[in-house]
Amino acid sequence: MAVQTVASTTNSGNAANGGNTVDLGPATALSCRECGHRVPLGPVFACEECFGPLEIAYDFSGHDAEELRKRIEAGPSNIWRYAPLLPVPADVADKPNINPGWTRLVKADNLARELGVTGGLYVKDDSGNPTHSFKDRVVAQALEAARAFGFTTLSCSSTGNLAGAVGAAAARAGFRSCVFIPHDLEQGKIVMAAVYGGDLVGIEGNYDDVNRFCSELIGDPAGEGWGFVNVNLRPYYAEGSKTLAYEICEQLGWRLPDQLVVPIASGSQLTKIDKGLRELIELGLVEDRPYKIFGAQAEGCSPVSTAYKAGHDVVRPQKPDTIAKSLAIGNPADGPYVLDIARRTGGAVEDVDDGQIVDAIRLLARTEGIFAETAGGVTVGVTKKLIEAGVLDPSLTTVVLNTGDGLKTLDAVAGTGLTATIRPNLDSFREAGLA
Amino acid sequence: MAVQTVASTTNSGNAANGGNTVDLGPATALSCRECGHRVPLGPVFACEECFGPLEIAYDFSGHDAEELRKRIEAGPSNIWRYAPLLPVPADVADKPNINPGWTRLVKADNLARELGVTGGLYVKDDSGNPTHSFKDRVVAQALEAARAFGFTTLSCSSTGNLAGAVGAAAARAGFRSCVFIPHDLEQGKIVMAAVYGGDLVGIEGNYDDVNRFCSELIGDPAGEGWGFVNVNLRPYYAEGSKTLAYEICEQLGWRLPDQLVVPIASGSQLTKIDKGLRELIELGLVEDRPYKIFGAQAEGCSPVSTAYKAGHDVVRPQKPDTIAKSLAIGNPADGPYVLDIARRTGGAVEDVDDGQIVDAIRLLARTEGIFAETAGGVTVGVTKKLIEAGVLDPSLTTVVLNTGDGLKTLDAVAGTGLTATIRPNLDSFREAGLA
Repeated sequence: MAVQTVASTTNSGNAANGGNTVDLGPATALSCRECGHRVPLGPVFACEECFGPLEIAYDFSGHDAEELRKRIEAGPSNIWRYAPLLPVPADVADKPNINPGWTRLVKADNLARELGVTGGLYVKDDSGNPTHSFKDRVVAQALEAARAFGFTTLSCSSTGNLAGAVGAAAARAGFRSCVFIPHDLEQGKIVMAAVYGGDLVGIEGNYDDVNRFCSELIGDPAGEGWGFVNVNLRPYYAEGSKTLAYEICEQLGWRLPDQLVVPIASGSQLTKIDKGLRELIELGLVEDRPYKIFGAQAEGCSPVSTAYKAGHDVVRPQKPDTIAKSLAIGNPADGPYVLDIARRTGGAVEDVDDGQIVDAIRLLARTEGIFAETAGGVTVGVTKKLIEAGVLDPSLTTVVLNTGDGLKTLDAVAGTGLTATIRPNLDSFREAGLA
Repeated sequence: MAVQTVASTTNSGNAANGGNTVDLGPATALSCRECGHRVPLGPVFACEECFGPLEIAYDFSGHDAEELRKRIEAGPSNIWRYAPLLPVPADVADKPNINPGWTRLVKADNLARELGVTGGLYVKDDSGNPTHSFKDRVVAQALEAARAFGFTTLSCSSTGNLAGAVGAAAARAGFRSCVFIPHDLEQGKIVMAAVYGGDLVGIEGNYDDVNRFCSELIGDPAGEGWGFVNVNLRPYYAEGSKTLAYEICEQLGWRLPDQLVVPIASGSQLTKIDKGLRELIELGLVEDRPYKIFGAQAEGCSPVSTAYKAGHDVVRPQKPDTIAKSLAIGNPADGPYVLDIARRTGGAVEDVDDGQIVDAIRLLARTEGIFAETAGGVTVGVTKKLIEAGVLDPSLTTVVLNTGDGLKTLDAVAGTGLTATIRPNLDSFREAGLA
């Protein structure tokens, strides 16, 4: 693998630094989430002992909370303000990357009124990222790992948002990109991904076939030097979601929200938001008090919600059938961890149907002027449902995530049209009852 | 008009404050750009003496440069950090608005290499605004004026970006919105504007018919209480473009760029960027040194470029025929002022054809991962052309504006497609020459 041929400029892979050959800031090792087995930082994602998922272990010792808070506040208006808490080199902000994050946290008073929330309702609007989805956060992270490991091609399997994020980041950073998608994807989505000039390869088959092919390519000499952001770089990639937790707390004035509503696709984002919140507590950057995390799914792909309601610890795969395509993962890898977190924090997992998703997109647009992707319809719809069911407490501070942009899922609200058609004169205007 | 019925909470329309009945911060009057005649702040846009355009006059006295700079830097991550320099009340950041701005200034080293720029090339990427175009800046400004004047409906004529910006801002601020568009607009654009839930009215006719109807409505009792952002609120609306100048200089470390490339539709944006730069110099926020402003048009709608090249002071109207629809104003109101500024600062006005626009969109995406609207293709294309012609100096710091989002003009690059289609196996991958 490429990592073995790359010597770090700052350390030499000796025992003192855990055998690492790369400098990824506070990251010290990959640690198995199941058995705790540790290996040096490298482009691997599964534990050699138990096949469990690997995640980043850090050394955050030596930070003074007040000093760290000031350093963060003086940092750039993007995720690199949190570089001391991420698996990236200290000078990351000077390298070419897509630099996402520091998206707005909107105090949604109109939506709060409609939903009866009195404790403060906020929408974290990630449509403001460079390619207009939260995927820019995780790809930016994977890109830094790819650079450290000496990869020269950035790759992924995708059905939409991720393809654009990888294409854009690779272009900016001077990597080759080669993205694999099902060959019969809608033309609009192909254009959004292809415009960045990388290779965009259609695979004759469905998304599962694309995934299988990517796994094959990683093990083959043809895939040497390739970083698949959501496969062999997954432990680094996933950490990007922690920045959502950091930003939300900083934007609330270094305060934990009481309740968060987070969408579930693979479940990785939700687990990393929880990880980010716990880190802020441990570092003394926020006061330690309880928070609840609620997971949101579409009814047409609700394996985690189904397991939660049935009281199961295991998630049974489903065949997705929903308009929320960016959440349509039928066999979510982090499903069991999501169940743990929802139960441990006193949250819940709920789902809404396609009609409720569309209604929620319209509700958010009408009340706050935010045009969300279907995934945002899922979180807003689930928030409404959980309040009506008495599960979510309207007297507490609540943050709802919108992770994507309505412009990418226009079909969901395609029925929206003109209020009236009139002739260009005042009589016609009055007749239409518009005055 | 509504203004006459509204009493300000902070002053009473007496002679001491120039007869103003509203508090719009440092704004003191409306002043005619042609004859200098002054009238109190109100929802008017043309001089009663000479029919010249009215613009905002300010009182910026009493500012200490260092103090003002610090106050701005401590402000919110949106245009309201510049509230002391805008026609808005001091507490504007506490009111519900769309809060655009503080978009990223991307150091475009890859693009610089391709174009041979050695002095530093930057792209100001306004696709990061809430509805993904610079229009959010001007609408946010108009909204504050509408609030001050007691208007309850926000309106405009539009063929695209502006409709969405008005719909979103009105929704957020609790205004009714009523936007007028040609009835045969593409369905996608209708959805983007209608999703915010305001009235969206199709007019049987072309854009000129829509405009004429709006002028009629302003003069009629049926239009009472209506703020047309780009008509009776135009002097306030236009000031929003100053924030582009402020942000660029602050993001450069409180420094003027040597050269700016700005798109021309009505020409208002370019004239207000010049106004903003001059204000920063006068206030001592940046060092006073020369800058050049270059205007960019599409060949299919190039009335200002044509006049510039012919050495004329007057702009002859054209019938637009270009893919850069957001710039397709055949009779640009501020054309003569643009000519003045280009000549005074040592800049120029140039145009590129539709093919060059598409090439430039691809060039920017391929080099910097920024997917621009056709208007961004115009500025990048003109930059390239001006460098090749020896007009733009590649050894100087240059800022190019991208004012909109590629997702809104997908048709322009619709030909972009798959690199290859393969079967899901390594043999097929190798045969396609992708390894």
